[in-house]
Amino acid sequence: MFIKIDFETEMPIYEQLKRQIIEGIAKGALKKGEQLPSVRQLAEDIGINLHTVNKAYNILKNEGFLTIDRRKGAMVSNLMPEITEQYLELLKEELKYLISNSYCRGMRKEGFLSICESIYDEIDDEKKF
Amino acid sequence: MFIKIDFETEMPIYEQLKRQIIEGIAKGALKKGEQLPSVRQLAEDIGINLHTVNKAYNILKNEGFLTIDRRKGAMVSNLMPEITEQYLELLKEELKYLISNSYCRGMRKEGFLSICESIYDEIDDEKKF
Repeated sequence: MFIKIDFETEMPIYEQLKRQIIEGIAKGALKKGEQLPSVRQLAEDIGINLHTVNKAYNILKNEGFLTIDRRKGAMVSNLMPEITEQYLELLKEELKYLISNSYCRGMRKEGFLSICESIYDEIDDEKKF
Repeated sequence: MFIKIDFETEMPIYEQLKRQIIEGIAKGALKKGEQLPSVRQLAEDIGINLHTVNKAYNILKNEGFLTIDRRKGAMVSNLMPEITEQYLELLKEELKYLISNSYCRGMRKEGFLSICESIYDEIDDEKKF
């Protein structure tokens, strides 16, 4: 898979793994219904602990991005999670912090929005291939 | 101060404290040059450990949001940190994850941008008072 773990950063490995799988689904590198490597396989491939992969898979299952079948293992859900009230709250909290930080540093609305726009466009572009 | 700690969430307390101080600076609740409560005072006020306040203050000092004077204690920096290459990378990484997650859940570009816009507008509004 396309996973790249940064062992130097403060972000926990399971969180990096979780984020990269969600990013992979968004840009279409992982398709709905697609089977993911087994916990053991992925742990070996990227040189991390079994439990770390397991933790990421379980969080993704609980959030609705993956389903876990006892025989087939982890697969990308056919039905993605929705925009719940709870998700929206969390998203706004995160954005409030990022925007406040950027605002203090002198980034104005247009600059911030254009970064968001180009990330959305990148995802759309990658989906075309 | 306006700090509200959520003891139920996964986010470390020092990180919550750090974020709220940056948000306070952005919206003008904390002015440049303003003195912050002493470590001891703030720890007492919000019922957390001295070391936790100390950790948040030190991170904010290292990032350039606060200066720490041996006699006067912590103050909001007169000169805010800049948009460095490193900050921009970090910001893009965070946004890439938030956008991917929202994209999977069916939020389109316009919806995401309009949330960002309204957060920026809120900050601008609060600055007027």
